[in-house]
Amino acid sequence: MSQKLNQLKKILGEIADLNHAESVLGWDQQVNLPPKGGEARGQQLATLGRITHEKSTSHEVGILLDELKNEYAGSDSDDAALIRVAARNYDKATRVPAEFVAEQSIVTTAAFETWVQAKGKSDFSIFRPHLEKVVDLVKKYVSFFPPADHPYDVLLDNYEPGMKTAEVQEIFGSLRTKQVELIKQISSAKQVKGDFLHKKYNAKKVWDLSEIIIGRFGYDFSRGRQDKAAHPFETTFSINDVRITNRFEPDNPLATLFSSMHEAGHAMYEQGINPAYERTPLEGGVSSAIHESQSRMWENLVGRSLPFCELFFPEIKKIFPSQMDSVNARSFYKAINKVEPSFIRVNADEATYNLHVMLRLELEIGMLTNKVVIKDLPDIWNAKMRDYLGITPPDDTHGVLQDVHWSSGLFGYFPTYALGNLVSAQLWEKINEDIKDLDAQIRRGKFDSLLGWLHEKIHIHGHKYDPQDLIQKVTGSRIDSAAYIRYLTKKFSDIYGL
Amino acid sequence: MSQKLNQLKKILGEIADLNHAESVLGWDQQVNLPPKGGEARGQQLATLGRITHEKSTSHEVGILLDELKNEYAGSDSDDAALIRVAARNYDKATRVPAEFVAEQSIVTTAAFETWVQAKGKSDFSIFRPHLEKVVDLVKKYVSFFPPADHPYDVLLDNYEPGMKTAEVQEIFGSLRTKQVELIKQISSAKQVKGDFLHKKYNAKKVWDLSEIIIGRFGYDFSRGRQDKAAHPFETTFSINDVRITNRFEPDNPLATLFSSMHEAGHAMYEQGINPAYERTPLEGGVSSAIHESQSRMWENLVGRSLPFCELFFPEIKKIFPSQMDSVNARSFYKAINKVEPSFIRVNADEATYNLHVMLRLELEIGMLTNKVVIKDLPDIWNAKMRDYLGITPPDDTHGVLQDVHWSSGLFGYFPTYALGNLVSAQLWEKINEDIKDLDAQIRRGKFDSLLGWLHEKIHIHGHKYDPQDLIQKVTGSRIDSAAYIRYLTKKFSDIYGL
Repeated sequence: MSQKLNQLKKILGEIADLNHAESVLGWDQQVNLPPKGGEARGQQLATLGRITHEKSTSHEVGILLDELKNEYAGSDSDDAALIRVAARNYDKATRVPAEFVAEQSIVTTAAFETWVQAKGKSDFSIFRPHLEKVVDLVKKYVSFFPPADHPYDVLLDNYEPGMKTAEVQEIFGSLRTKQVELIKQISSAKQVKGDFLHKKYNAKKVWDLSEIIIGRFGYDFSRGRQDKAAHPFETTFSINDVRITNRFEPDNPLATLFSSMHEAGHAMYEQGINPAYERTPLEGGVSSAIHESQSRMWENLVGRSLPFCELFFPEIKKIFPSQMDSVNARSFYKAINKVEPSFIRVNADEATYNLHVMLRLELEIGMLTNKVVIKDLPDIWNAKMRDYLGITPPDDTHGVLQDVHWSSGLFGYFPTYALGNLVSAQLWEKINEDIKDLDAQIRRGKFDSLLGWLHEKIHIHGHKYDPQDLIQKVTGSRIDSAAYIRYLTKKFSDIYGL
Repeated sequence: MSQKLNQLKKILGEIADLNHAESVLGWDQQVNLPPKGGEARGQQLATLGRITHEKSTSHEVGILLDELKNEYAGSDSDDAALIRVAARNYDKATRVPAEFVAEQSIVTTAAFETWVQAKGKSDFSIFRPHLEKVVDLVKKYVSFFPPADHPYDVLLDNYEPGMKTAEVQEIFGSLRTKQVELIKQISSAKQVKGDFLHKKYNAKKVWDLSEIIIGRFGYDFSRGRQDKAAHPFETTFSINDVRITNRFEPDNPLATLFSSMHEAGHAMYEQGINPAYERTPLEGGVSSAIHESQSRMWENLVGRSLPFCELFFPEIKKIFPSQMDSVNARSFYKAINKVEPSFIRVNADEATYNLHVMLRLELEIGMLTNKVVIKDLPDIWNAKMRDYLGITPPDDTHGVLQDVHWSSGLFGYFPTYALGNLVSAQLWEKINEDIKDLDAQIRRGKFDSLLGWLHEKIHIHGHKYDPQDLIQKVTGSRIDSAAYIRYLTKKFSDIYGL
């Protein structure tokens, strides 16, 4: 290995260590922080962030990358991929001035705090001036990059490298019509019953069951752990330390099980990355959509499938006999897949979820291109909710103020949630070609062939291939909606007798 | 404030943030780490340590300190103290070459792993070559500093700034004779009964009780937390985030209570530092002995006192009625103060503890000055145990291999444990002069005057005064053993009817 590459890897290794240290501090903030510990933690994270940014944008790294890019051009080795990804990261980091990053941090900190208040009072007008500032900064961010086909491309690329806005719009276009149509059919069919899901459940028993399930899926507890936090999330400190968090909501007690499966899906991806990529830019999942394809697959295509219910329902019924009185595997299956247009994205079922995402994408593009005036946002939001889901939010808390993303300057992220759903179905079709008896295996509690397939085809590669190239390589086509539509139609035709 | 001082504080603030980030990663390693997460964590800590060291020894800091030292010479302001302490830290850090630090890290990592094995097999010969290397490095470390009155001064100064070996030897000299004499008297007196302390206790009930006790002492749970770990320790991320750990040992179930009091003693010190010192070298407790004076005071002078037993025993008896059958406050008091020469320092009672420490100090000085040949260490250890405590360790595990310190290169630390005991008694006499009815207050569960006194006299000052100056200021004399001897004699004369 060349001396320059060695030197580059040494610096990138330090940057990776710093990023992981920040992740540890962030995890601890969500999981363990004493009530008054927040201010100091903010300062510690700011200092680590500044040092990481300095190292990531150093002149030395720039020179090494310039020289190595030429040396490794045209190669498809791991080292060439590493240099390509490192160069892309470096280009992005150096385009954005440090003062901008500092300003953005101040603006979004205030915007986040105001959003919390505004959401509490259900009053968008409190949040509006802050959102206007955030959007101005988002536009300014885009201006640091060369003109793209669409200004939104610059934002999208941060979460889904190489993906274009036009392509997402095309995919979503056909998907929307078909999902809206499906929801209409479902709403005029006989509704399924799920009251027993909202009875009183013992929190510890649900929590323990969630760990039993994901342990059987293949989440490796010797390289991770599940802790309580306000929101479920997955975080990675190394392939040998991939943690998830979860919560128990008395109103929706079994949601804990599906959150565990979801986060374990993310975590098994991270636990499966090639160990040779540790402490390099090739570590970690390659994009938000591919990541979400893994979490949604374990949560929905496995966890909300009939074979899984046939396997696990007897166990669930043993733990919760009174709650499950006169419920069987099939009625449990129907209940956990109940479709119902609702206001809150994170609680949406599989048939309606993507529509929530499309709405947000349209608004983000509108704000970025000045076609949506921010003061009109609540009205536009509500009109689109009527269009897509046939319901009108009663207030801003259940409408435009529900998500944290915009207050944090997170623009460009939402579409990846829906793209992840699409990818999960594309992979699922391919998996079922390769593993003919997958349903039977799930019914027997055998998940190792499935996890092995994902490991070999997706996980191990880390960041080596760009997401579209990876999906093309594995499924033979780029990201598209056909498989997901087939999946939804089949599943809900069965459940609702369409 | 001068621009230079501003700039210095900015850099020192970043160094403090990095140190605290390392502490978070270290705490997480002890408390939460998944079984396979260790290697990556080691790398992350090494990177943070390297970056902290680079920042701490930068040329810029050296120049700022040189200029500011002159500007603030003779002042007794907080800023002058900050500059003085920062300059001392800088001098120490820059004398030690980075390659030495790296070598030391490699040698002690291997020595630690070998020590674990050697202790498991109770075979000093396995550890011996590693200890020889460690001691060579300790000697080399000393050589980086200007010749001192005694080479051990250089080591001691890292934990007890300004303290001299000769002074410690003088203090310990008179203390040893009197403690050995006291133990002889006790051993020929009627022994106290404590079998009930080793019955079966419910771990959760003991744990919860420990948190009730330290909460009443004044440990602020809104700025801290207690978690399970293999060993009890205290760690500080900010004055608003001071955490302690503890364990439950079925063989010695109530030790959990006293460990909580001990660690909470450390933690209340850290929670009480002047907030203006946050993120500066004045933050944190000033020395290991002063720190230990706080932990030992709450553990022993409060927690093992008769007034405390009179207050808390009824509560303890309510929780553990069968274990405490036919026990009363006074017999409980006697049992938790039982004196018995024993092999293991960390389990030693108040009357014997310091002798364990003196033995170690003598051996450390012997190794450093080549008067003790390392292969003879087990024999010398055992001979001294016979001399001081009248018992002979059955094997190396219960003798020379019991402590982790030497494997980690921690030389110079042991004496501070005993000095802390002495200081706790010196402060206690002064406190009882100032708070006439302290015993009565404790009997009523009132700890705020005591904590307030410690806060005002000790805690708030952080690193502003050197430890001996602080003790002089507060008690009118330097560290000495008279108060501790008076304390031990009075307490054990009562318990053993001497």
